[in-house]
Amino acid sequence: MYEIIRRDGLAKRGRLHTVHGVVETPVFMNVGTAAAIKGAVATTDLQEIKTQVQLSNTYHLHVRPGDEVVNKLGGLHKFMVWDKPILTDSGGFQVFSLAGLRKIKEEGVYFNSHIDGRKIFMGPEESMRIQSNLASTIAMAFDECPSSVASREYIEASVERTTRWLVRCQEEMKRLNSLPETINRQQMLFGINQGGILEDIRVDHAKEISKLDLDGYAVGGLAVGESHEDMYRILDAVVPHLPVNKPTYLMGVGTPINILEAVDRGVDFFDCVYPSRNGRHGHVYTNHGKLNLFNAKFELDTRPIEEGCQCPACRTYSRAYIRHLLKAKEMLGMRLAVLHNLYFYNNMMEEIREAIENGNYAEYKAKKIADMTEKTC
Amino acid sequence: MYEIIRRDGLAKRGRLHTVHGVVETPVFMNVGTAAAIKGAVATTDLQEIKTQVQLSNTYHLHVRPGDEVVNKLGGLHKFMVWDKPILTDSGGFQVFSLAGLRKIKEEGVYFNSHIDGRKIFMGPEESMRIQSNLASTIAMAFDECPSSVASREYIEASVERTTRWLVRCQEEMKRLNSLPETINRQQMLFGINQGGILEDIRVDHAKEISKLDLDGYAVGGLAVGESHEDMYRILDAVVPHLPVNKPTYLMGVGTPINILEAVDRGVDFFDCVYPSRNGRHGHVYTNHGKLNLFNAKFELDTRPIEEGCQCPACRTYSRAYIRHLLKAKEMLGMRLAVLHNLYFYNNMMEEIREAIENGNYAEYKAKKIADMTEKTC
Repeated sequence: MYEIIRRDGLAKRGRLHTVHGVVETPVFMNVGTAAAIKGAVATTDLQEIKTQVQLSNTYHLHVRPGDEVVNKLGGLHKFMVWDKPILTDSGGFQVFSLAGLRKIKEEGVYFNSHIDGRKIFMGPEESMRIQSNLASTIAMAFDECPSSVASREYIEASVERTTRWLVRCQEEMKRLNSLPETINRQQMLFGINQGGILEDIRVDHAKEISKLDLDGYAVGGLAVGESHEDMYRILDAVVPHLPVNKPTYLMGVGTPINILEAVDRGVDFFDCVYPSRNGRHGHVYTNHGKLNLFNAKFELDTRPIEEGCQCPACRTYSRAYIRHLLKAKEMLGMRLAVLHNLYFYNNMMEEIREAIENGNYAEYKAKKIADMTEKTC
Repeated sequence: MYEIIRRDGLAKRGRLHTVHGVVETPVFMNVGTAAAIKGAVATTDLQEIKTQVQLSNTYHLHVRPGDEVVNKLGGLHKFMVWDKPILTDSGGFQVFSLAGLRKIKEEGVYFNSHIDGRKIFMGPEESMRIQSNLASTIAMAFDECPSSVASREYIEASVERTTRWLVRCQEEMKRLNSLPETINRQQMLFGINQGGILEDIRVDHAKEISKLDLDGYAVGGLAVGESHEDMYRILDAVVPHLPVNKPTYLMGVGTPINILEAVDRGVDFFDCVYPSRNGRHGHVYTNHGKLNLFNAKFELDTRPIEEGCQCPACRTYSRAYIRHLLKAKEMLGMRLAVLHNLYFYNNMMEEIREAIENGNYAEYKAKKIADMTEKTC
């Protein structure tokens, strides 16, 4: 199901075969939290911006419109009209970051909906059932993402519970995939490594979950406030203990430089809200650094966001026009900036894949980072 | 510049030749207040939804980004990247509806910006200069739109001043169009008939302004709170006194039925915020009436907004999905609903043109209204 086409140092140029088509890796998955990418981006726009995988959030879809509703409508692919791969997260991260009062027990988590306050219970089985209802291509295991300031004792106990939950997820998915009424009976399961920034706990956990024959392995609980150095240190320690012949997914990461560094450490799946969130706030990526389009110096700037860029915004519109739209709070300004940013990320992943194939990833990475940080624009 | 291809009763099937191409009438102009149609609709979307003319608001563009800025960027066409006709209003309506404290004098109007409160003066010459800076295809004369509850005395005096202002507009545009630095030296001017719902004042004013050889004539000051019957009565009285061999524009109108009725009375230019505003609120037009997509009955409705509709929303997405997006406050829901509504209006205008050409406008209109009001959906 997953094959490595080429390695360059630790960097992996892979290919994941799924029931919804092939994913060329390294890949940046585009976040569509509530079954839509924020910024008025439709699935019909995604081909133009080189999107391979769309990522939706289990927790959000469970509370609205409800996974049962999506299931009755034929699953997320039919609902959004997208026939390529979709990854759903487990809901765990949102339970811990968004939900109100919550209580963690061995069976799962009791919490209140952030929308209407109603009581919800979610454990490994519930998360798997919801994701099976959504019929995503790849489901994520239900885990706890402990606070970055939690004690060693808390993290140890939490990680052990996450392992027990993972076993339950695997069993429940096996059962769900065997049911005739299941929409996607070939749903894949990725497990999640946790352990905060404590290398020994991370490594022990990685070894433990590697014993289970999962479809992929994620590193979770990073990019939650720790330094970039801590993130890279944990990747240096953990990735070698995850199965190299499986996809390696760094959750919620990150800046273009974070991605370039993580690829160099063997990671090949990414997702992050940065490009869409930054776009909505007028911050756009270029190969010469990030621009704040609200800056007055762009008022009369007839150039596209980036010269030569083939995204739907740059092919037609000027910085001056997009700046005006953003200042006038016209949604179109957000849409154009988001389309550009997602294209920038997706296009960078294409460059990364090419560099690994050509065996010159180190040079590519060094030049890309130097250009992006030279601050000439 | 304007030719009548065919008449069917009072209905006109016309063609306006402009420096930015031909406008086939009757036409519905799509409102892009601040140089963008609200709902994240770009000029690159407009061909797909059959837009012929884009309408922008002089007052809004004067305060942001500033008409001088748009002028330095080459005018509205270059700014928005749209090479077909653009009509700009005079700013008068916004001065009277949006601005804070204002004082009307013979020379023009003193008022405060609704954005930052700064004092602005706008008179006929200023409005023409701003519109010349914007370089629209068609400029509207600066007029006063008196309150619908104003006294006969007030309306009489106001209409007389509007006539004097119109003469000044015509002189100033002539001067501006003769300047070498003017971007669009073939800018057209439409005059505006006023007079509230007082037929005699309206008719006298129509006769008066018809003496000036303008490029088109608008009926303003309707659809501001009066009944539909009053609107139709005024059109019945006034349109016969406007030059038939010039475009006839009913400003700010209206519902599909208003348009069908006004076409039957000789009107062939329209504009209205309804399709975009209603779309943003989840109200969508169909040939069987308007739907409120927030209604629970659409939760599992896999049909497009309208079966057979060729708009970008209906070609791909279901009512259930768009309803979910609107409920989740995803901008994409608004974009899809707005695209559908504008397509509905623009497509209806195409049907209207065809019906007039075929000489069966009365039957077409009767059937269209019957279908739209049968309330079966």
